[in-house]
This record gives sequence, structure tokens and C-alpha cells, in this order.
Amino acid sequence: MAAETSGAIEQEEQIVTPWEVAAEKGGKIDYDKLIDKFGCQRLDQSLIDRVARLTGRPPHVFLRRGVFFAHRDFNDVLDAYERGEKFYLYTGRGPSSEALHLGHLVPFMFTKYLQDAFKVPLVIQLTDDEKCMWKNLTVEESQRLARENAKDIIACGFDVSRTFIFSDFDYVGGSFYKNMVRIAKCVTYNKVVGIFGFSGEDHIGKVSFPPVQAAPSFPSSFPHLFSGKDSLRCLIPCAIDQDPYFRMTRDVAPRLGYHKPALIESSFFPALQGETGKMSASDPNSAIYVTDSAKDIKNKINRYAFSGGQDSVENHRKFGANLEVDIPIKYLGFFLEDDNELEHIRTEYGSGRMLTGEVKKRLTEVLTELVERHRRARAAVTDEV
Amino acid sequence: MAAETSGAIEQEEQIVTPWEVAAEKGGKIDYDKLIDKFGCQRLDQSLIDRVARLTGRPPHVFLRRGVFFAHRDFNDVLDAYERGEKFYLYTGRGPSSEALHLGHLVPFMFTKYLQDAFKVPLVIQLTDDEKCMWKNLTVEESQRLARENAKDIIACGFDVSRTFIFSDFDYVGGSFYKNMVRIAKCVTYNKVVGIFGFSGEDHIGKVSFPPVQAAPSFPSSFPHLFSGKDSLRCLIPCAIDQDPYFRMTRDVAPRLGYHKPALIESSFFPALQGETGKMSASDPNSAIYVTDSAKDIKNKINRYAFSGGQDSVENHRKFGANLEVDIPIKYLGFFLEDDNELEHIRTEYGSGRMLTGEVKKRLTEVLTELVERHRRARAAVTDEV
Repeated sequence: MAAETSGAIEQEEQIVTPWEVAAEKGGKIDYDKLIDKFGCQRLDQSLIDRVARLTGRPPHVFLRRGVFFAHRDFNDVLDAYERGEKFYLYTGRGPSSEALHLGHLVPFMFTKYLQDAFKVPLVIQLTDDEKCMWKNLTVEESQRLARENAKDIIACGFDVSRTFIFSDFDYVGGSFYKNMVRIAKCVTYNKVVGIFGFSGEDHIGKVSFPPVQAAPSFPSSFPHLFSGKDSLRCLIPCAIDQDPYFRMTRDVAPRLGYHKPALIESSFFPALQGETGKMSASDPNSAIYVTDSAKDIKNKINRYAFSGGQDSVENHRKFGANLEVDIPIKYLGFFLEDDNELEHIRTEYGSGRMLTGEVKKRLTEVLTELVERHRRARAAVTDEV
Repeated sequence: MAAETSGAIEQEEQIVTPWEVAAEKGGKIDYDKLIDKFGCQRLDQSLIDRVARLTGRPPHVFLRRGVFFAHRDFNDVLDAYERGEKFYLYTGRGPSSEALHLGHLVPFMFTKYLQDAFKVPLVIQLTDDEKCMWKNLTVEESQRLARENAKDIIACGFDVSRTFIFSDFDYVGGSFYKNMVRIAKCVTYNKVVGIFGFSGEDHIGKVSFPPVQAAPSFPSSFPHLFSGKDSLRCLIPCAIDQDPYFRMTRDVAPRLGYHKPALIESSFFPALQGETGKMSASDPNSAIYVTDSAKDIKNKINRYAFSGGQDSVENHRKFGANLEVDIPIKYLGFFLEDDNELEHIRTEYGSGRMLTGEVKKRLTEVLTELVERHRRARAAVTDEV
């Protein structure tokens, strides 16, 4: 798994690949266009209702509020589930940084919800090999980051008895490698150029990698988990920039006698500076990290969180905040669980009765609590990986 | 390791790649031209004498008679050896057929000699992954062939305490995979196209493979054998069609802090039909297999071995045999150990005093004994692979 899911840099046409996310010049990512271009489906209300019905619990905030907004064959997975067939979840992370930021947590928080709701096994791939190749990290440094990231991932609260976290450098081999080879045989160079846009000057490690990310989509890559269960379906929660990998995987699947993996795909988590700003690993002020102190969080929100509020209190009272561009409101949409409170804030703030400072104060509370809870959970993670 | 080391098919210009060996139209492989094109060095008499001096034993038939005729940095390996530094040997085989033929035995017979003479460790790679991808065999079938071939290789008499035979499907992973990734990072797609001639319609398994064959050139790919010995040199005995893999490897080595692997390279073993005929796995009559019976061997030699003798006894007595194209003489050059006897046969046959039938009879004896000995040795190989 790859992309620094970023906001947008100025760009003639929007670009969404596993390595680059950039909106059209001056605009935001157009997710409708993306659904059309990629050929995936919109995750509509009836599907969300169906999840609620099947799991007997309210849909996750990320479903209710459209953070996970697209899918491929998710309904097939639910059909099978309804018939009593289980499936497994597969997600991952490219360990390119020491600490995770809030955007990194999104797929893991959602995956935890899916695991709890459906009571299914989960595999989590840490693509240290990919980061070694793309970010030019040493093997050792990539592995160290993978181990550090694994602790943060475990801290998200997965059911350890049903979860297998692995690093590629540790796990590639045996049945997994055999599937890599089987997949690679089905994909031409021209095909990966079409999907990923590699050039002749790219190193062959890049060309070799897509089968590594594809392999966990097939249960036979995990004989110690799924021996004899080759027809088990796989559901992949991920950000939509990962779609190209799984388009390729879905092409290959029937030729190898497997189900196509299903996908449930999220939009990108915006940078503090706004949806047109780039959330960059090189700018620590563009994101809130799980290692940030309460003071850091407060400072970052107050200083950097792009506000849709008006430039004077007078104007604000008169015109209200522009919620479309307001980052505190966006962030609350991800992390404030209470629908009524969120609606209340939106109304008050949008009408100008509530000021930016008050919204930022509430966001600071929510995020401080979230990060605090994460920190306690992470501290409890021992080296039992 | 790849090529069906074949003779030659009709061709405008000679082609030597790991997958195709073809002489110029109507001719034989021009090995001098190959040395120039590849940029390797001729293995001259002074180097052969040095091997004899250093090992205290006569040089192997394949050295005396120019079967191994080219090298890269072999002198550096000998310099280091003279200083008391050991090295290790690396050779391999792509398991594409059930049984080996005599040409397949050549590198293994020579490698056994080197192991015995220098008392060094040896790694043998069975590239079942490669054959699965190139020959479109299933994973299972490639692995089965690898196991069968391993028995034939062991039967060549390697010092088992110093020899590690592995199949890629079994062994790729861990330190080996890490080296694959390190190597892949150093090689662009354009580079492998230049070296191997891949096209955009080739599958990415082919593009991914060169690092798999390169990795055993570095001692850190075998931590259970060479832990802490990263500066150990590697010497690779192989047929010259494998040179492209190791040109690439030698390019990469210094960037990873390793010695470039040294090479000692052989010419191709000719088909029974002659050096311009193709030795083809699909034509069992083009080669003698280690599974052939004494009767098979006799029949194949009598019927198919291309003769340089004249078309009538009368002409033969008058003009003598053309030793340049005579296959029985070529084969005796590989497998008749006694230099005096070989010289005697060459003189008598070349002058017309000896007839083709007599030479073929002697060859039949030599090969029957060789194959018989191999069969006994193979039968003694248990499943301790």
C-alpha cells in the first residue's frame, strides 16, 4: 500500500495514482469523476442500510458520512455473507514514516469496525519492500518503520486472534511467492504501464511490485490461515488511490480460479491547510500525528487548520462560515461520533452564530481524546508481533 | 538458469541469449565474436596452468580442451585464493524437462571438479519459478521437475557437506528476497530491455526474474551458510548464454558493496545432428539423456550422430574424416578422458584409416559407461534433498 494520501497540488487534470494525488488546478478531488474513470460503484444508502441490517449495529461514522463512498462487488460479499459464507479482510500500509497521522488511521479504524461487525479474519500487509524501493530507504530502515507502524496499527484495537500482520520482507516466500509468480505471468509490461504509468527509466523493482500487493487478495497466499479455503472471498478496505492495484488483481483472479477481491474505498483525508493543500510527510504542520502532544494538537488546529469562517466577527455573524472549505468541520465529520452534535455545530457555525474559535476548541478536545486513547493503547502493545 | 543450450537455427546474425541460441545462417556459433560482444575474456593457457599449480591436480578435461573457454575476473578469484581467501561456487539449472541430457551435465561435472579441487562451498539454484513463467508450466509441475532434476544433480557427486541445492519456490524469501529488492532497485526497465530484449507484451514475471538469478551471487543471500562473510567472492561456472544475467549482476554489485561475481563460461554442447542443428527438448533424438538405455544410446549415435566421414569407404580412405563437423569426435572431446587415446583417434580418423563406425562404437562405450555410472549414482540418491 502506498500513497501519502494527500490533498491536491496545482494540476491541469486531476491525478490519482498510488503515488500521487492531485486535484485539478485550484479545485478539489472530483470523486464522481474518479468513480467514472476507475469504473467502480458508488456506495449508496441501500447498501449502507443492508450493512446495518446484516450486522445488527449502526453503520460506522465513515459509512454514514460518506468517507467510504465507493466499492467493487461489496454487494456480492454481502450476498455470500447472508448465505452463511464468511470472507476475510485485507488492508495494508506502506511504512514510509515513523509515526502515523490521523489520515493513516482512517482505513484501520474502519477495518476494525468491519472485523468487529462481521467477525471475520483480517490480514494486514506492511509493504516495507515497496517503501524501500520507492522512497529509497534501506531494507533495514524500511523494516524498522514497519515494526513501528505495526504497533500503531495494533493499537487500533484489532481482534488479535483473528488478525495477521506481516511485513513483506519477512513474509514473501513459499505460497505467497508462488502466487506472486502466478499473478505476474498474467500481466504484461504494457498493462502495468497502462495502469500505473511506469516509464522505461523506472527500476524493475517497481514493475515487480504490483503482484506483491495483489497476492494477499487470494486466500492461498496464507496457508496457515486459509488452508483448503481457496474459494474464500476477500474484501479490501482502502483509500481509492489503491484501486489500480486491485483492478489489476481483479483482472487476473478468474484466470487463477479465484474470486475477484471486493473493495470498499474511501476518499482522502484532507490536510490541515485545506483540501487543496498537500498533506506532506515533509511538512509536519500539514497533519496531526498520533505522537503529537495535546499542546501540539491545539497549536496546529489553531494556527494551521484552514477556516471557512469570515475575516471579521462582523462579517461572520452576517454571512456565516463556508462549511465546504472549513477543515475543522471536515475533521469533526470524521471523528465526532455524535450526529446530533455535529449537525448542531454545522447549523450554528454555518449561520454565523458560532465562531471558528469555538469549533476549533471542540475539534481540539475530540482529537486530543482520540490521540490520548491511541497513545495509551500503543503503550500497551508489547513486542508480540 | 535458462537456455536449452541448443545448436543453431538458420539466422541472419548469431543470437545468444538465455532463451535462444542461434548461429549465423548456415554456420556455427562464433565464440570469438561472442567474447568481443559480451566483453568477457578468453581463458588462456597461462590461467589453466595456474589452476593446475594452485590445486595440485591436472586441469579438468573441459579446461584442457577449451569447453570452458571464457571468463570474467577468474584471475581475481585465484589471486584471492592464493592469499588464503576462500570463495564459493554458484551454478544452477532451469528445470524444464524430466531428465537431463549430456549437455545439462557439463556445467555440473565441471562444478564438481572445481569444488573438489578448491574445496569450497557450492550453491545450486533450481529456477523453477523461471520455468513456470517461461515455459508456462504450473507451479506444481515446475517444482516436481526441480525435485527430479535435483536428484540428477546430486548424482554428479557433489560434496554434500559443502553443497546447498535450493528451488526458488522453496527458498525465495527473507535475506534472499531482500537482495532481490536491493538488486531490482539498481536496474531500470530500459536496462533489462537492452540486456535481455524483453518487449512490452512480455509479462512482468520475466522483467522481475533477473534479480532472482542475480541474488545467489551475493553471499548475504545465504545467511545460514555465509553469515558475516559479506566479502566472500563468488565464482559462477555456466554456459556463456547466461552471461547477460551476470553482466547485470556485476553492474549492480559495487553499488551494494559486494564483489562482482566472477564467471567461468562454457561453449554449448552440440546436438547429435551437428553444431548447426538444434538440440531441442521436443526432439528426443537430438540428445542423449541420462535415462537412455544402452540400446537407446547405441541407436541414437549410429542413426543420428552427424558424421564428418566421407560418403564412401573409398573416399574416406582417400580424404579422411572432416573432424571439424564430426559429432562423435566432438562428444569424445567432452567425455573421453584419455588425451592420448583421443589424439590417436583424431589422427587415425582424420587420415581415413579409422572409419566412422569404429569411432561411433568407441563413443557408444564411453557414453554408455557414463550414463550407467550416473544411473547408479542417481538410484542411490534418497529424498534427503
